[in-house]
Amino acid sequence: MSGPEQSHVAFGVLKETDDEESRVALTPDIVTRLTRQGITCLLESGAGARAGFRDEDYRQTGATVTDRNGVLSKSQVLGFVNRPDASLLKGIPAGTWIIGMLGSLSDKDYIKSLEASGLTGIAMERLPRQLSSAQSMDEMTSQNSVMGYKAALVAADAYGSFFPMMTTAAGTIRPAKVLVLGAGIAGLQAIGTAKRLGAVVTAYDVRPASRQEVESLGAKFLDLGLDFSKGQGEGGYARQLTDQEQAQQQAAVDAKAAGFDVVITTAKVPGGKPPRLLSAEGVANLHPGAVVVDCAASDLGGNVEGSQVGTRTTDKGVIMIGAPYLASGVATTASNLLSRNVADVLVHFLRDGALSIKTDDEIDQALVVSGATKSSAHKSADAPDVEKTEEKGQEQ
Amino acid sequence: MSGPEQSHVAFGVLKETDDEESRVALTPDIVTRLTRQGITCLLESGAGARAGFRDEDYRQTGATVTDRNGVLSKSQVLGFVNRPDASLLKGIPAGTWIIGMLGSLSDKDYIKSLEASGLTGIAMERLPRQLSSAQSMDEMTSQNSVMGYKAALVAADAYGSFFPMMTTAAGTIRPAKVLVLGAGIAGLQAIGTAKRLGAVVTAYDVRPASRQEVESLGAKFLDLGLDFSKGQGEGGYARQLTDQEQAQQQAAVDAKAAGFDVVITTAKVPGGKPPRLLSAEGVANLHPGAVVVDCAASDLGGNVEGSQVGTRTTDKGVIMIGAPYLASGVATTASNLLSRNVADVLVHFLRDGALSIKTDDEIDQALVVSGATKSSAHKSADAPDVEKTEEKGQEQ
Repeated sequence: MSGPEQSHVAFGVLKETDDEESRVALTPDIVTRLTRQGITCLLESGAGARAGFRDEDYRQTGATVTDRNGVLSKSQVLGFVNRPDASLLKGIPAGTWIIGMLGSLSDKDYIKSLEASGLTGIAMERLPRQLSSAQSMDEMTSQNSVMGYKAALVAADAYGSFFPMMTTAAGTIRPAKVLVLGAGIAGLQAIGTAKRLGAVVTAYDVRPASRQEVESLGAKFLDLGLDFSKGQGEGGYARQLTDQEQAQQQAAVDAKAAGFDVVITTAKVPGGKPPRLLSAEGVANLHPGAVVVDCAASDLGGNVEGSQVGTRTTDKGVIMIGAPYLASGVATTASNLLSRNVADVLVHFLRDGALSIKTDDEIDQALVVSGATKSSAHKSADAPDVEKTEEKGQEQ
Repeated sequence: MSGPEQSHVAFGVLKETDDEESRVALTPDIVTRLTRQGITCLLESGAGARAGFRDEDYRQTGATVTDRNGVLSKSQVLGFVNRPDASLLKGIPAGTWIIGMLGSLSDKDYIKSLEASGLTGIAMERLPRQLSSAQSMDEMTSQNSVMGYKAALVAADAYGSFFPMMTTAAGTIRPAKVLVLGAGIAGLQAIGTAKRLGAVVTAYDVRPASRQEVESLGAKFLDLGLDFSKGQGEGGYARQLTDQEQAQQQAAVDAKAAGFDVVITTAKVPGGKPPRLLSAEGVANLHPGAVVVDCAASDLGGNVEGSQVGTRTTDKGVIMIGAPYLASGVATTASNLLSRNVADVLVHFLRDGALSIKTDDEIDQALVVSGATKSSAHKSADAPDVEKTEEKGQEQ
């Protein structure tokens, strides 16, 4: 059995094509790590620039920096922060592996196009997060953590008063009251960061287990006077609420929101329509100068009714920030973390010096969505298990 | 002797004319306070909007909201965040009192124009800060405190990595190393805020007493291996360093700066050229992705060589933020504090229901820079004591 040093795998990373994307799927530290595993690293010139990494930083750690075609023609596997768009897909040679957030949970046509192009798709969004062996590959967790941190910073920066309490000769300033809706990874990080800054933080999540997590960070759990104790799903996912439950929840949250200066919502559903956590009435209840940061804002709507991507101020003076790109706004750290996640997925598939799929491996079964060995490794994207995954809401 | 309830003093506040200025010199809370003292409050419609206060908020607390001319014609005294510009001065009736940051330490022509217009100028920048009776009037302290908080937030928001240390499944992220240059009110607040966010903070100030203040916040004092122990001036002001001392200091700081991710400089000199704290060489020593926030940036230069107002990235990837408007960026809190400062100055001059100057009062002697009773209350702006004040550097 040959060791990894005999590997002839070349891993290529391109500049992301989305203008809002500052992250990169490979950082210089990870080049060192992959090179040690016998993997050759190729980078499109300038791909790391917006994340603070220069071509020379990559060269110094042993990567080859070249142009797009050079990367495409020499790489057996390509890594992406997001996924290659349709025009880029056409330029990727058949047989190449693609690792990225492929949107496979919501966009079956895309997976079909990978299949049609003869590409092996490794979908980061399908990672079985509950496996301890998968934790260092968990890009959703790492990026949501960055997102939560940044959400609290963006809120503090937009808010016209202090987050901490301050006692001065000209009077005492009360601390900001911050409400975090959705207490998954992102929510907990937002809670922690707002607490660090001195705000008084309250949080809410439909999963009963989250009460303990919220309280362990020193935040209050918002008491709605409602019982959704059947809300806990499997694998860390929360189920969608029924229509009636959602209406009850919404009315209660809308009413409670009035007392807060800042509301941060974090319930993103990968590729899906985000759950409504604050209605227009809830926004109308907020005082002038209050700040809303909606991490789930997108073309499909957000957690807050009327959310749009970007910043606007309502007629009543509420500052609404629709912020889908928060992880990208902390590009260096976010890239370091996701590059490690992507690299660990890559190394997982490196067997006897080559990329291969083990049909009996749980991670392989989950991640491989298209490609030569797909039929044996993974059920079709049309199979029932996929439908089931789609139905799950997910608190980030 | 008539009580304050017999006062016929009307206090007016206009929209600030500087586009970058979001603060307002009167907030609704303070209207209540002044009304209790028998002072009538007048506000130009929309003056509080950018600080989050609506006309109706003022009306509810008893202020009269009207147009500019209405305020100008009915007010015995006007309050400003900054100072009325030349065109506005022409519209202010002779005999009116003007309270604001008048720039009297650097702009004698302006004071002469107040004199020529028959206006009584009350210069907030001349407050004898060391008097305990003056503390609630200390706008420089209150606004620098806000500035320091915001400087740390702006730095954290611009920095591509986390301020706090984080341990994740994808590796540990080390905390940001922040250097604060100038450890006055603003510097200490920047230190405190960066520490809250989890950064490892080091600070430097030429005043030896600042070492203890820095260390009491849990930050390190930067050891330059130099002795400027004669640096401490009177009244909390630091003296300017000699040319040789400055060169030594600069070289040492420039060399030490290389190890930091974020540099925040806070040594503003009211109306004067700010001292150089980081040279171009120091900036060149910083790593790509490092962030510099220069609170003293202005048309006269800043604490950092090459500072400009606004954000730019150097060829080497250092993010340079010249940020003279930071207090204005936390407009609600900043306005609440300065409104209280201005109101307390106003009430100080309210004697027997009318505005008057007591020639033997230390605060009156310091603040009155022009007007009917100026010659008795205050030495001329050309007198030696003014020159002396101008020579003093001041760490904010």
